[in-house]
Amino acid sequence: MSPSSPPRGRPRDPRSHEAIVSAAAELVAEVGYAATSIGAVAARARVGKDSIYRRWSGKPELVFEAVFTSTDLAPVPDTGTLAGDLAVLLQGLIEEFHAPAAAAALPGLLADFAADPVLKARIRGEFLAPSKERLLGVFERAVLRGEIADETPVDLVLDTLAGAVFFHIGLVGEHPTAQLAGRLAAVVAKGIEIR
Amino acid sequence: MSPSSPPRGRPRDPRSHEAIVSAAAELVAEVGYAATSIGAVAARARVGKDSIYRRWSGKPELVFEAVFTSTDLAPVPDTGTLAGDLAVLLQGLIEEFHAPAAAAALPGLLADFAADPVLKARIRGEFLAPSKERLLGVFERAVLRGEIADETPVDLVLDTLAGAVFFHIGLVGEHPTAQLAGRLAAVVAKGIEIR
Repeated sequence: MSPSSPPRGRPRDPRSHEAIVSAAAELVAEVGYAATSIGAVAARARVGKDSIYRRWSGKPELVFEAVFTSTDLAPVPDTGTLAGDLAVLLQGLIEEFHAPAAAAALPGLLADFAADPVLKARIRGEFLAPSKERLLGVFERAVLRGEIADETPVDLVLDTLAGAVFFHIGLVGEHPTAQLAGRLAAVVAKGIEIR
Repeated sequence: MSPSSPPRGRPRDPRSHEAIVSAAAELVAEVGYAATSIGAVAARARVGKDSIYRRWSGKPELVFEAVFTSTDLAPVPDTGTLAGDLAVLLQGLIEEFHAPAAAAALPGLLADFAADPVLKARIRGEFLAPSKERLLGVFERAVLRGEIADETPVDLVLDTLAGAVFFHIGLVGEHPTAQLAGRLAAVVAKGIEIR
């Protein structure tokens, strides 16, 4: 994600990167997205503001990385059925959106992304990419089992799942019940199944 | 929506209310939500800022009324099938979220609502109320036709529909295709039907 450029001055310290990202996540969970400033993050991480601007274009990019990088590691669910796989995928989204830093950051972060044309173009690419990868894996298996058609619209389903979780948790702020993932998965699976 | 209080001073001029609401809608469509300030609205409407604060608690409340009041008038769809009714309801949501002022205001408006506990509690009540009324009407008919069970979870379906539209249009910013409402309605209808 850092632009490549010829070496100049001191090499970037990876510990600073970590310190900055951790500071951003802590602050957002403590004081909310709006009140988290680059200056406050710099102070918390004990770096200069230029250290931050060298790596990120601004607050939305930094907070996004601080809050949403862990999901790259989640494996593709494989429960044996489409509904079961979707429930696992949804439970992952629910936990991600409901973690303190994410819940605090998500509405304001997405608003800033949407208001900036350059960042907006990246929402589907970056924010939804890990989830889309997993959903494509789930769909591949469902096609092989004959549960869904090959041309099932993955973006439509992804928007529906992500939007439903975002609305329910990130925006309306309701604590997710233990049944939410299962119920939503059952509706969407039944909605796209061909058998 | 104005708090009731004993008459004091000059009575409120309904033309001011209209002028303020129109000015807010215009400004948001022109310069976006973040750049729309109470001061700019007051100047555009040719009123003092106190005229605005007397009626609304702040920017989120005012912009919400300016952008989302027309939907109270939409009738309950009655096409004869659940999928058809959901498609009409969704097309209404799509047009509402995609209108210039709404598209400009929605992400930032919802972020401000979510960050304020008092306003947040009102999202489901005010923002989704007209859509929930219409969806309940659609569900009543679908239950009578034997399409869905009596206990079909209306809030879950509403969050799913509103969230999907919001994500697709309000956030990712894609122009809605003519088929979006129909495709989403077909998936959700099939997902909740019992026959």
